[in-house]
Amino acid sequence: MTTKGGSGQTNRQMWKTEQKVKVYVERFHMIEPKDTIVLGISGGADSVCLLKILARWKEAWGISLRAVHVHHQLRGEEADADERFVRELCENEGIPCRVFYEDVQGMAQREKIGLEEAGRIARYRCFATVCEDVGGGKIALAHHQDDLAETMLHHLVRGTGMAGLCSLKPVSGNRIRPLLCLEKEEILVYLEAAGQPWRTDSSNLEDDYTRNRIRHHVLEELKTEVNPRAVRHMAQLSEELEETRAVLAQVAAKKRRQYVRKSEKGMLLAEELKKEPDLIGRQIVHDLLKEISGKQKDFTRIHVEAVQELWNRKVGARRDLPYGMQAIRTYDGIYLERKAEKCETRDSEKNAGIQINVHSEGTESFQIGELTLTVSRTARDFGEIPEKKYTKWFDYDRIKQTLVIRHRQPGDRICLFDGGGSKKLKDYLIDRKIPAQKRDQLWLLADGSDILWIIGDRISAAYKVTAESQRILQAEIKGGSTHE
Amino acid sequence: MTTKGGSGQTNRQMWKTEQKVKVYVERFHMIEPKDTIVLGISGGADSVCLLKILARWKEAWGISLRAVHVHHQLRGEEADADERFVRELCENEGIPCRVFYEDVQGMAQREKIGLEEAGRIARYRCFATVCEDVGGGKIALAHHQDDLAETMLHHLVRGTGMAGLCSLKPVSGNRIRPLLCLEKEEILVYLEAAGQPWRTDSSNLEDDYTRNRIRHHVLEELKTEVNPRAVRHMAQLSEELEETRAVLAQVAAKKRRQYVRKSEKGMLLAEELKKEPDLIGRQIVHDLLKEISGKQKDFTRIHVEAVQELWNRKVGARRDLPYGMQAIRTYDGIYLERKAEKCETRDSEKNAGIQINVHSEGTESFQIGELTLTVSRTARDFGEIPEKKYTKWFDYDRIKQTLVIRHRQPGDRICLFDGGGSKKLKDYLIDRKIPAQKRDQLWLLADGSDILWIIGDRISAAYKVTAESQRILQAEIKGGSTHE
Repeated sequence: MTTKGGSGQTNRQMWKTEQKVKVYVERFHMIEPKDTIVLGISGGADSVCLLKILARWKEAWGISLRAVHVHHQLRGEEADADERFVRELCENEGIPCRVFYEDVQGMAQREKIGLEEAGRIARYRCFATVCEDVGGGKIALAHHQDDLAETMLHHLVRGTGMAGLCSLKPVSGNRIRPLLCLEKEEILVYLEAAGQPWRTDSSNLEDDYTRNRIRHHVLEELKTEVNPRAVRHMAQLSEELEETRAVLAQVAAKKRRQYVRKSEKGMLLAEELKKEPDLIGRQIVHDLLKEISGKQKDFTRIHVEAVQELWNRKVGARRDLPYGMQAIRTYDGIYLERKAEKCETRDSEKNAGIQINVHSEGTESFQIGELTLTVSRTARDFGEIPEKKYTKWFDYDRIKQTLVIRHRQPGDRICLFDGGGSKKLKDYLIDRKIPAQKRDQLWLLADGSDILWIIGDRISAAYKVTAESQRILQAEIKGGSTHE
Repeated sequence: MTTKGGSGQTNRQMWKTEQKVKVYVERFHMIEPKDTIVLGISGGADSVCLLKILARWKEAWGISLRAVHVHHQLRGEEADADERFVRELCENEGIPCRVFYEDVQGMAQREKIGLEEAGRIARYRCFATVCEDVGGGKIALAHHQDDLAETMLHHLVRGTGMAGLCSLKPVSGNRIRPLLCLEKEEILVYLEAAGQPWRTDSSNLEDDYTRNRIRHHVLEELKTEVNPRAVRHMAQLSEELEETRAVLAQVAAKKRRQYVRKSEKGMLLAEELKKEPDLIGRQIVHDLLKEISGKQKDFTRIHVEAVQELWNRKVGARRDLPYGMQAIRTYDGIYLERKAEKCETRDSEKNAGIQINVHSEGTESFQIGELTLTVSRTARDFGEIPEKKYTKWFDYDRIKQTLVIRHRQPGDRICLFDGGGSKKLKDYLIDRKIPAQKRDQLWLLADGSDILWIIGDRISAAYKVTAESQRILQAEIKGGSTHE
């Protein structure tokens, strides 16, 4: 590609795109003066555009930029050329660039995960390292409106409700998405106008099957056959829904102050709440279930409705809820509370396991039988992985309560496939033809009755690191024999 | 197809589906004792299933059913067989059936509209006639969850915002959709279990290009390649969004009581409203624009944002708005009002036209030059259509203000393509090579500056009768010469 910049038309085009990103970044307060912004640069169009546009406003915003390139050691000469391209680009823009060499293939083989997932974990780890080095910093991601539209379609059919339609946000935690105001096409037009080449295949690793079907079949069809502005319209909807969620949360918070009182072992939902819209009632019950039980994040609609349904029941009716909670219909309303301590103790005496605190940022080790478990909330590089040592990565934000290392218990379940329901652990172990006695000896990393990891065997699809994971939990195990 | 019913498995399957529809109908209060329910029966699976299930609960609900079959006179022997099939089905179920013979082909040719649209208008007309005959009555439509999912996808990419994702509702006006709780597949399984045959091609007429692309490409791909429960998940989302809209409307109504006061010529939005979430402010402004200007229904986001933007402007700043309104920033907040009468008079003196009141149910005639315009809110059959007579049908609910028959005015616009933006009327007439002098003589049916119908030429795509139209305006013109 040759440099074409210079004509008035092209300059105006570039200026428009740069302004659009600037306005968007400022509208969502993504960047503050003196911020250090960490950019993952693959060399593909999206990340190159992100780098160019942030470099354009660097002085105006008073920020510094740090580039990170992850060499996946997968595509030989092509990957080396990607690296050279990124190094040169950063030098031209005056941005320090750090290159990480990651054995993604080896990691995928050792951990029996897909190349995409291995690559994703490697990148997270590198970003985390650089953020630590600079003592903070924000990670800028190159997601654009086509990515948003794909994610929306994916969530639309997966049943994640309204929340799923606005999950790719301009700001989430320390991650920002300055290009979420641009369509893919605008990015390409910008780079061409700027006479800025990019590497074509360098981001393929991020694709997976479902994502590809949605991108090349569903979204393409919608754009070409139904409405050429499909992507822009979906992005607008996502913003509208995010605003809506914020208003609903405000309303629910207010009603909660009016109608929810602390009780001895939990909370009382006053009778008046019954008359509020069901949607508000559900939101409040959902929040309370999370609070009373500890830190779980995704109670399902079934649990919430089991509680709501009590409004129409006689006094005395009760519903058992996960994590030792119950809901009871009384004359005053509905009590949501933990069950008597005795039951819990009995349960935990039977098969207590070891509780793991993963809420600090540091690394902790635990001795369980002949195993040593090391967990760390940010994915770190533990150096070369010797034999008899397994490392797994999990989506930290999927964890609902305190993690426990223990043997199996009745009711344990594991999710085997992406987006699939969970299966009884017992049935899975029988399918795998693991003898009953051995089944009882397996060590499990558990979140309530949900199994994250059958150590030495597989991890739950429900806790896998995905493109949308915010924080990663790394768990490493040493010593001991597993059933494999 | 042979009767397979009888096995326990099959009976249980049928019972489950019938129960599901019963619970759904009762949950949304679709039916009351003594209701007369008018069913359009094409003979296709959906309408046959609707008839069977409503017949199943007829006694329990204490309702009477009336079937309507529209013979489109398009597919010769096949259509006759459809008719025989429907007559026999109704006889077996003991439901009175009325068959209408409609010259859909002729209508489509005369009116230069598609066969789908002509068929749709014919059906609406027949339903309206039967409803009138029975002195009221509800129209039951056979839409199911796959239809809902298709509509959602269509609206998702057309940019209709949250409202579009819940536009196919269980109840809208006098129309009910008892099967909106079933997937297409459940309908087919039900009919097979019941040993009830159906006619396969009889509903094809309802399909159009875009709908077919979405059904056979987009939705099919999502169901088979991404998530088999896609349709059910989308239906759940639609309900969630409908609930959300209701809560938002409540919140907006409350804030409006707090922060909006009547002023001399309009309304004052008090300064405090500025601090409320933008979403709520937008909803209130939108409602007020509708009220102040008369009966318009779809002000766009651009108008609403023009008003909202005034919060950040200096006192004295003003924005012109459609239909002779303006917004003015003052020390007290923002005034939304009609502009001084003088301007309006001047405008209307220039090219007043004749106002048409279409708010009553009856039929009214107007003499304009050498033309006679007859309008009727429910689409009636005016008998055979003689030469020099044109009949057009419009979506009544798209009309924003009082209809006017007049000559052209500066600023007139017309929408030429489905989902497309509008074009200047002047540009359209120039493209059509209509000489300037003739342009001024054309009669227009206008809604503000939006043209519904260039009489003798084309109608606006924005007012076309679609599958989602609730009420129809029929306009018939006699006499006079048009430019064609």
